[in-house]
Amino acid sequence: MRELRKDPIIGRWIIISTERAKRPEDFKQPPDATTHEKHCPFCSGKEAETPPEVFAMRKPSSKPNGPDWDVRVVPSIAPLFKAEGDLNRHGNGMYDKMNGVGAHEIIIETPQHIGGIYELSVEQIANVIRTWIYRITELEKDERFKYILLFKNHGLIAGAGIVRHARSQIIATPVNLKRVKEELVGAKLYYEYKERCVFCDMIKQELDENKRVVVDIDGFISVMPFASRFPFETWIMSKRHSCDFESLTESEIVDLAKVLKTTLTKLSNAVHDPPYNLVLHNAPFRRKKRKPGYWRTIEEDFHWHIEIMPRLTRVAGFEWGSGFYINPMPPEDAAKFLKEAEG
Amino acid sequence: MRELRKDPIIGRWIIISTERAKRPEDFKQPPDATTHEKHCPFCSGKEAETPPEVFAMRKPSSKPNGPDWDVRVVPSIAPLFKAEGDLNRHGNGMYDKMNGVGAHEIIIETPQHIGGIYELSVEQIANVIRTWIYRITELEKDERFKYILLFKNHGLIAGAGIVRHARSQIIATPVNLKRVKEELVGAKLYYEYKERCVFCDMIKQELDENKRVVVDIDGFISVMPFASRFPFETWIMSKRHSCDFESLTESEIVDLAKVLKTTLTKLSNAVHDPPYNLVLHNAPFRRKKRKPGYWRTIEEDFHWHIEIMPRLTRVAGFEWGSGFYINPMPPEDAAKFLKEAEG
Repeated sequence: MRELRKDPIIGRWIIISTERAKRPEDFKQPPDATTHEKHCPFCSGKEAETPPEVFAMRKPSSKPNGPDWDVRVVPSIAPLFKAEGDLNRHGNGMYDKMNGVGAHEIIIETPQHIGGIYELSVEQIANVIRTWIYRITELEKDERFKYILLFKNHGLIAGAGIVRHARSQIIATPVNLKRVKEELVGAKLYYEYKERCVFCDMIKQELDENKRVVVDIDGFISVMPFASRFPFETWIMSKRHSCDFESLTESEIVDLAKVLKTTLTKLSNAVHDPPYNLVLHNAPFRRKKRKPGYWRTIEEDFHWHIEIMPRLTRVAGFEWGSGFYINPMPPEDAAKFLKEAEG
Repeated sequence: MRELRKDPIIGRWIIISTERAKRPEDFKQPPDATTHEKHCPFCSGKEAETPPEVFAMRKPSSKPNGPDWDVRVVPSIAPLFKAEGDLNRHGNGMYDKMNGVGAHEIIIETPQHIGGIYELSVEQIANVIRTWIYRITELEKDERFKYILLFKNHGLIAGAGIVRHARSQIIATPVNLKRVKEELVGAKLYYEYKERCVFCDMIKQELDENKRVVVDIDGFISVMPFASRFPFETWIMSKRHSCDFESLTESEIVDLAKVLKTTLTKLSNAVHDPPYNLVLHNAPFRRKKRKPGYWRTIEEDFHWHIEIMPRLTRVAGFEWGSGFYINPMPPEDAAKFLKEAEG
């Protein structure tokens, strides 16, 4: 099997090439080398080893930067962006530069020394999601920021560092992000032609075909996209159309926690806890404030979702040069395997 | 130092973040595990172990698929695309697919068991370049192909496989490539506004500033771009404006061979033979045949060049989600270091 498939949203082509094929078992990973609990700065009791907290969900009587919390948010100790200063965007001949003004926060997802978010209870994962929403909403208020990226690096190969303690990251950037723009442009083009949301259409076709859906719980599905770039690439999508992750209701938060837990548990069991990157694709914020009316279409044509990208294959020259991805495993096979895995 | 820089061609932002900084020495690589010469299918005398050759530069009296060659081109044994069949592009609901029709050739750059192209003589490298041009020109004649990508994976991490024998790859694809399109669009925008080629302007500013130029030989420079994505990212550019790599003259071919050899030798000495991907960025072919006049601007606004991307850092969730790259090393420092390295 050697088939080209086009991503319906941003128009990226991928190639499914099973002649280099692997069975799911071939992707099993050796466990990462990890830091022992007693050296972990993210555990309960080690609050003094991180910068002072920005926010925490904690027991009513507990004190900031002490124990008795469920989720804790601290600034990164190696921030890519810092909150102080102004943007100072300027040219130098034909080149443009600006200061790295922004925010970079670490969301510590549990006080216990646990490596994977899927090992937490549904209620604890719901607390993590509530914290994500709270921090995105707070950072949205800073006029200097254009986008907030929420992501998670799990495992050494995915860039997690050697401390194995479940956490996610939020970065607020002063510029628009290229990949976000591409997705908005693709979704807008589709909407202009069809007057329908491309993501809603995807969900409908996936549920009808039922070949790539892994989990279907209440308002959410997890699905391997038709044009998956990577083996076991999985998207979590809300059946209710919304461009805003922050618009999740309380009951949706709990459902999303269930889908996340089930999907990541299945992935961990099927491929032995693979390294992965998880990225929230959300609409740019401040859309209502800046140009009234201008962003209205985004509310109809964009649809927030979460992309989980296991890092089981290597990206080489062809991919870098072409923006074309080679996937040795058809998503239909990966979905079947994951569906049957314990979760 | 934490500075955002914008690529003037495709508008990609990168961040120079020296707080995670590394000195050049920190990037030194352990040598790859490699296959011994006697198991190498690319060496002279082992011609029967590859598919029959598509082309070879060989001694006048020698026979195809026998010894006595300088450069040899064979089809890949694990091709991403195959020449047989038609495209059969079709939809499936909202999704598009087509057959993987194309070509995938391996250019064996030397009959000896040598790992790096920079270890070859200038004359031998010139033969490799002549072969690249010949094969691109030949494949261009197939009406089914839209683009030809020439690239090189050097070292295990860059996807070279375990056989350490200098070679490059050519892939002809039946679809347009996303990254190529982005570059064409960016260069066109600049040209429309300035009526000048963005690459020519870049070369001029780089030669004036002289902070990021590594090698300057006759008609070519190698330079670390202002918005380098990776430590030691280096572009080789022709001072003569041309959108066509195939338009190189005989004396330019020899000069390009010198620049390639010097640049890659310096890189190897400075960072201990790092893994890298090398990609030729060339204008799409068939531009004159398909729509007369339509592509004329590409001849003025696009400028072929070679991008060399050492694989010394890891791409994590933030980069995947944003299209934003984090570079721990300012290109000015990397250029200074490489300039002083033996080459």
